[in-house]
Amino acid sequence: MSETLRLSAPVAPGGTIGILGGGQLGRMLALAAARLGLKVCIYSDDADAPAFQVAAHHRVGRYDDEAALAAFASACDAVTFEFENVPGATAAFLATHVPVNPSPHALAVSQDRWDEKNFVAKLGLKTPPFATVLSHDEAKAAFAKIGGPAVLKTRRMGYDGKGQAKVFSAEDTIHAFDRFHGAPCILEGFVDFEFEASVVAARGIDGTFAAYDPPENVHEHHILRRSTVPSRLSQAQSEEAQIIVQRIADAFDYVGVLAVELFVTRDGALLINEIAPRVHNSGHWTLEACAVSQFEQHIRAVACWPLGDASRHSDAVMENIIGEEANDWEALAARGGALHLYGKTDPRPGRKMGHITWVRERE
Amino acid sequence: MSETLRLSAPVAPGGTIGILGGGQLGRMLALAAARLGLKVCIYSDDADAPAFQVAAHHRVGRYDDEAALAAFASACDAVTFEFENVPGATAAFLATHVPVNPSPHALAVSQDRWDEKNFVAKLGLKTPPFATVLSHDEAKAAFAKIGGPAVLKTRRMGYDGKGQAKVFSAEDTIHAFDRFHGAPCILEGFVDFEFEASVVAARGIDGTFAAYDPPENVHEHHILRRSTVPSRLSQAQSEEAQIIVQRIADAFDYVGVLAVELFVTRDGALLINEIAPRVHNSGHWTLEACAVSQFEQHIRAVACWPLGDASRHSDAVMENIIGEEANDWEALAARGGALHLYGKTDPRPGRKMGHITWVRERE
Repeated sequence: MSETLRLSAPVAPGGTIGILGGGQLGRMLALAAARLGLKVCIYSDDADAPAFQVAAHHRVGRYDDEAALAAFASACDAVTFEFENVPGATAAFLATHVPVNPSPHALAVSQDRWDEKNFVAKLGLKTPPFATVLSHDEAKAAFAKIGGPAVLKTRRMGYDGKGQAKVFSAEDTIHAFDRFHGAPCILEGFVDFEFEASVVAARGIDGTFAAYDPPENVHEHHILRRSTVPSRLSQAQSEEAQIIVQRIADAFDYVGVLAVELFVTRDGALLINEIAPRVHNSGHWTLEACAVSQFEQHIRAVACWPLGDASRHSDAVMENIIGEEANDWEALAARGGALHLYGKTDPRPGRKMGHITWVRERE
Repeated sequence: MSETLRLSAPVAPGGTIGILGGGQLGRMLALAAARLGLKVCIYSDDADAPAFQVAAHHRVGRYDDEAALAAFASACDAVTFEFENVPGATAAFLATHVPVNPSPHALAVSQDRWDEKNFVAKLGLKTPPFATVLSHDEAKAAFAKIGGPAVLKTRRMGYDGKGQAKVFSAEDTIHAFDRFHGAPCILEGFVDFEFEASVVAARGIDGTFAAYDPPENVHEHHILRRSTVPSRLSQAQSEEAQIIVQRIADAFDYVGVLAVELFVTRDGALLINEIAPRVHNSGHWTLEACAVSQFEQHIRAVACWPLGDASRHSDAVMENIIGEEANDWEALAARGGALHLYGKTDPRPGRKMGHITWVRERE
């Protein structure tokens, strides 16, 4: 890159953190920033983004509008993002104007399942077996290598189960590849896991690292339904999980919160499923069960503040409110626990509309 | 009043809660409303009110500008306030346009120390001895009745020790009355208390009542420095304190959060010092130590939602950050605990700039 990246410096109270993306994660980041006396400016291509409602400033613009991005950058002391599908060019462009964390490099790697898998494999960390699929021939070869059942996944833009297909034969694999219109894919071995877990952690500008206790996660229809802490992980597994994430964060020279989704196999191994270079749904319980939530932790990191205390003072269960479940808000409000609604008006199927966290004294 | 008061009805997510006043209490109410998917509109006469930074909407206007107030009311589904010195006429005017809670009646009584003391005395609740002082003759008579030391207080507009003078003689009392420019006063017997405590509680539209555990409070220079839960109150005293507040709330047919400050005497009696018809500084710890904070509880009440769970899952200590203490924000950010900064730019002496709450597992 010919232009110089802007270096990070502490953002004093009253300063402005720019956030790319205006969904619920941006909204909860904005609320956390407000608690610290920081302003936020939300940049989104959605004129009705939920995060706008709680932000001191917001801008509506396309992610490839360099003039709008430059104006946004000039209004911010530091910039971060709430979703990992920010175009790489957008992050790189902004980074020449204002400090951007996590780094565009971490963003780019985690946007591509193939790059991501290779990145963690090179660190010596375990993943399900995987192989590249860029053609019919590779589809056949990949299935021959991995065996069935397996899961064909597009390398880019997948989330909540989109761009995934379970396959049982080479022919299945080819058909799925065609259904994805020949987009670059990887084939992953299907893991018959005992349960799923994740680690949400933060790395500060000074390299300090703070991990939250790993929750156990239950998905329904590929969408997170419930996260529970403590999980069924043993103490040793929990520590191993946190070390995995620290190695990834260090390798990226990462600044901010990241999440790593794990499969816990029946023989106790931890396999890396996915890296999210951002705050994560499976960390929402930290709002109630920790003094400093994942959202505040991320803001602290990108503002170059010291990380806060990530220790968990309570046990917690978090459940998502999905689609039309949100319509019954009066019943939800009476269910006890801490109710969060994201200010979204259209409860379409599969859309995350809110969540509830119940806390109780640690056992 | 000739016009009809507007009756309350549940405000659905996406609806707007109006808040009179834009200081830190309004700001924290706005953040709590956001969590529930509600928008807020802040009305303040300060064009740079800290709460504006986190509100979907705001309006700058005088509290006696009926056209501006009517326009504000028409943009809101329900209205509340963050400070008890809202002019009574303002609250009464708004109540003819939009549901206003707590009621203008509760506001009016708590704005006047004489009315407030008589209100609680009529309920058979204990206060320090008090007497009216509207003239030099009454100053003499009051001191003769109460004895010294005593505290002369203006009936209206006092907070953080303003409008208060400790007196040791009838002459002192007269001089203090003159220093307050002959404003209506009351003389209160000075209470040599063991410690101070408070109860923050909520009453819902349906009459349900939920009290938080009473904190023990330490003031410095008449400004709250620290609140600690659990307090030194016995279980029986805690229950008595909560019953006192429930009787007051029921007598007002109150909707919302209120706080009652108590003196705990050396022989264990609980004397009512003051009623605040709003969220209260001594309840800030509920943000971290309870699933539903005082701020969310107030929003739930004024939005006619069911009250949330007020139980305390953790022990907590809250300390205010006052005046220039806020300048050292990097050290504050490294002190552990949950840091709150209010977005104020001018750290003048005695100004509440933020607070920190430390939580730990219940003992």
